[in-house]
Amino acid sequence: VTPLDTKMAPGGKPIAPVALDSLFRPRGIAIAGASNDPTKPGHQVLANLLEAGFPGHIAAINPRGGQIAGLPVYPDLASVPGPVEMLVLAVPAKTTPEMTQVIRDRARTRRDLKVVVAIGGGFAETGEADGARWQEDLAQACREAGVRLVGPNCVGLIDNRYRLDTTFLTGVHRRAGGISLLSQSGAMGAWMALEWGAQPVPVGLNKFISLGNMADVDMVEVMEYLGRDNSTRAIGLYLEGHRRARALLEAAGKVAERKPVVVLKVGRTGQGSDAAHSHTGALAGADAIYAGAFAQTGLIRTQRVDDFTTILGAFDKLPLPLGGRVAVLTNAGGPGVYTLDALADQGLELGQFSPATRAVLGATLPAFASIGHPDGHVDMTGGVSARHVMQALASVLRDPGVDAVFHLFIPTKFTSAEDMAREMLMLLPGLKRHSLDKPLFPVLLAGHGVAQARRMLEEAGVPTFGSPDQAAAALAAMARYAMRRQPPAIGAAADGRGL
Amino acid sequence: VTPLDTKMAPGGKPIAPVALDSLFRPRGIAIAGASNDPTKPGHQVLANLLEAGFPGHIAAINPRGGQIAGLPVYPDLASVPGPVEMLVLAVPAKTTPEMTQVIRDRARTRRDLKVVVAIGGGFAETGEADGARWQEDLAQACREAGVRLVGPNCVGLIDNRYRLDTTFLTGVHRRAGGISLLSQSGAMGAWMALEWGAQPVPVGLNKFISLGNMADVDMVEVMEYLGRDNSTRAIGLYLEGHRRARALLEAAGKVAERKPVVVLKVGRTGQGSDAAHSHTGALAGADAIYAGAFAQTGLIRTQRVDDFTTILGAFDKLPLPLGGRVAVLTNAGGPGVYTLDALADQGLELGQFSPATRAVLGATLPAFASIGHPDGHVDMTGGVSARHVMQALASVLRDPGVDAVFHLFIPTKFTSAEDMAREMLMLLPGLKRHSLDKPLFPVLLAGHGVAQARRMLEEAGVPTFGSPDQAAAALAAMARYAMRRQPPAIGAAADGRGL
Repeated sequence: VTPLDTKMAPGGKPIAPVALDSLFRPRGIAIAGASNDPTKPGHQVLANLLEAGFPGHIAAINPRGGQIAGLPVYPDLASVPGPVEMLVLAVPAKTTPEMTQVIRDRARTRRDLKVVVAIGGGFAETGEADGARWQEDLAQACREAGVRLVGPNCVGLIDNRYRLDTTFLTGVHRRAGGISLLSQSGAMGAWMALEWGAQPVPVGLNKFISLGNMADVDMVEVMEYLGRDNSTRAIGLYLEGHRRARALLEAAGKVAERKPVVVLKVGRTGQGSDAAHSHTGALAGADAIYAGAFAQTGLIRTQRVDDFTTILGAFDKLPLPLGGRVAVLTNAGGPGVYTLDALADQGLELGQFSPATRAVLGATLPAFASIGHPDGHVDMTGGVSARHVMQALASVLRDPGVDAVFHLFIPTKFTSAEDMAREMLMLLPGLKRHSLDKPLFPVLLAGHGVAQARRMLEEAGVPTFGSPDQAAAALAAMARYAMRRQPPAIGAAADGRGL
Repeated sequence: VTPLDTKMAPGGKPIAPVALDSLFRPRGIAIAGASNDPTKPGHQVLANLLEAGFPGHIAAINPRGGQIAGLPVYPDLASVPGPVEMLVLAVPAKTTPEMTQVIRDRARTRRDLKVVVAIGGGFAETGEADGARWQEDLAQACREAGVRLVGPNCVGLIDNRYRLDTTFLTGVHRRAGGISLLSQSGAMGAWMALEWGAQPVPVGLNKFISLGNMADVDMVEVMEYLGRDNSTRAIGLYLEGHRRARALLEAAGKVAERKPVVVLKVGRTGQGSDAAHSHTGALAGADAIYAGAFAQTGLIRTQRVDDFTTILGAFDKLPLPLGGRVAVLTNAGGPGVYTLDALADQGLELGQFSPATRAVLGATLPAFASIGHPDGHVDMTGGVSARHVMQALASVLRDPGVDAVFHLFIPTKFTSAEDMAREMLMLLPGLKRHSLDKPLFPVLLAGHGVAQARRMLEEAGVPTFGSPDQAAAALAAMARYAMRRQPPAIGAAADGRGL
């Protein structure tokens, strides 16, 4: 594995490593380059901090003074009184000589600065001598001042729990959850974060960090930090290639022993790899080497942004299955067949119903329902009532031969999606009380017509899925992760919990 | 290939075949079982015909009389005066003896009836003797009366151009377009039709038909009809297995010489095949046999509903490419790399820029843009203006080394999605005037934030895409179809237009 990019790696390790908590928990933030001009990054950073409701002190800095968004503007960093633990540089790269002096002065006089976030471009990524020198000088000044440097040429940081947003992105949602995203590409991270916000209910974003040129803080350190961070339940990693690829994969592998790490690694193909090299200077490396390392370290790899989004959301909200044996209950025949294909494509097997389950299903469902053709699959038919669906669901969830349940639903003239959602919300608390903590995948087919029902369920903490393909990808990832964390006892493979 | 289902096939060929135009162009429709009860199919059929704005005579039939939705109710079919070319049976299967008499009487006295659409279930699909006999009797009566029978146990028909909707589905959109959908499963057809309606602008639905038990009209005949239908530009086929599989594939193959046929065939896997048999009685057959037949006959196979939707929409709205050489222009590096991987996965190659194109790109784009790394790929960077994007697009579309263009866009603080859409709408008419009729794939990343821009473009007839994966699947299908219809001349393979 040789994804080295010396061009991007001018700095060594910092002299005095500061805990990365400061990245996400600064007591006060100053923005150099704050501006009234909405096309300037410094404007958007300030707007985002205010919109997020950042609880600490915010200081806008601009030599021209005046006011921005109702805040007084300080002419320089020296004039800012309160504790400034984070300085956001939203200024042109050519001001670096001045900025390094500002950082040194603040460290000498006030000793409050802990982190510099340099969001502007024009540094080593340009391939030009000036840019490389400015980046080296900035890193050097931060090292000497005992200050950590994020970037330069990065999008910045978000912490939805701490209401921090130092990015210049627009439209990122503020719904705090258990998923943290570490992205090598700012735009890719932005795309993902925005896709998460476009779900029926946003995928809960905990922290977002895009590191840019990584002159100091790199992905290895952040991965280790997120592994220790108790509020992060699952980690999404977008990767093109890393100069410390082996260290990153080792760190991620250790984290994956405690919480799932889902990786979207691009540059998989020849032409993609060429473009990745041109983009972040990353040598993407032979994809087979990465693939092997992901498998060995227990990382979960996806190739599509939609799968990445769905899998992370499922890890955040669903209990882990004990195995991969799935039952499928559907009120629509064709979509049921489609789903069995999608599950088989993911290597998932159907569960086996106990005689007790079969008896309940036979007594509950309409006469023409097809139960157990094949075993583990129930076509309840379109005529089934929402209440009978719930009785069937409860019996299947209780069956020890079933690790997870898919519930496919298409609205019919007998049962609206909202009726079904209401019945499900009455059923689930009782099941949880009886410790039936198996993952349930409600798949609500048919676009706009089920949007309201999906929101009802999601707002109540029940994740929903828009297609069998997405749900199958999520269950497969969860089952594989669960099996790796808790492999079946010797001999237990015979009970069919294979994957 | 042996997908036989004698259980479902009680009828022979009709004695006097009536042209299938009557299915979609009846002058008058009567609904037996019309009802004020919204849970009854007969209510929904009437509501759909009214909502669609069906231009012919609509007659509600119910022995109880009264009014439904402001229409007078006739006590029986004999009382309906105007021409009744289509009779929709929304009555229980057990009324079949009475219905067969009604059909015979109308044929004897008025001679206007051409089609019976039997949407109710309870026939041969139940596997019970009564149901099978009723189906046979109904088919027999229709044959003797010279009337075509659709169903029984079907969802019915939609023709958005003729404003016909005899289904009991809710939420199907009414936007007429070039795509016709032939579905073996009613619920699957409903799912697809509803997904089409949930796109930023609905995929244009021309005709929809779900044939149920196929006691008379079967998929072969409808496929041939849709092949002849000038308003149908592309055909979607959902298939589990067909008793005349060979004839269906031959018919579809002939149609595919004139217009694309996109197939979603389920029962691909062991467990899916078992469920398909239980669902429609179809013996799904070894998937490899179907796969071979699809390839041989030039049908386009997809495995996912989202791909099916996107590919059909692209065929409806985009010109066919002359080959598979694609250029990728992006304002975001990471998503560009991701897209090159997605294209390679689909077997698509990058085009090669001419020196003239390189010169224009170099003169137009920002200094830090990455042009041709690899060849055919341009990272315009986030700082590019909408106007410069359009100049770059125009030069790449003109390049003879490029068959199709992907334009990836993520909103930035410099350029909103709406700005970009406005500029594109100014550019495209001029390009069309100069006969540059190459397919352009605008891929607008980032969920909610680009919804309005996608609608602006789509309303103006410019298809848009929400992910590189979807766009790559569409281009690959189009390029393969184009190559099959017009294979390159001998020796032309050397110019790189391979797939």
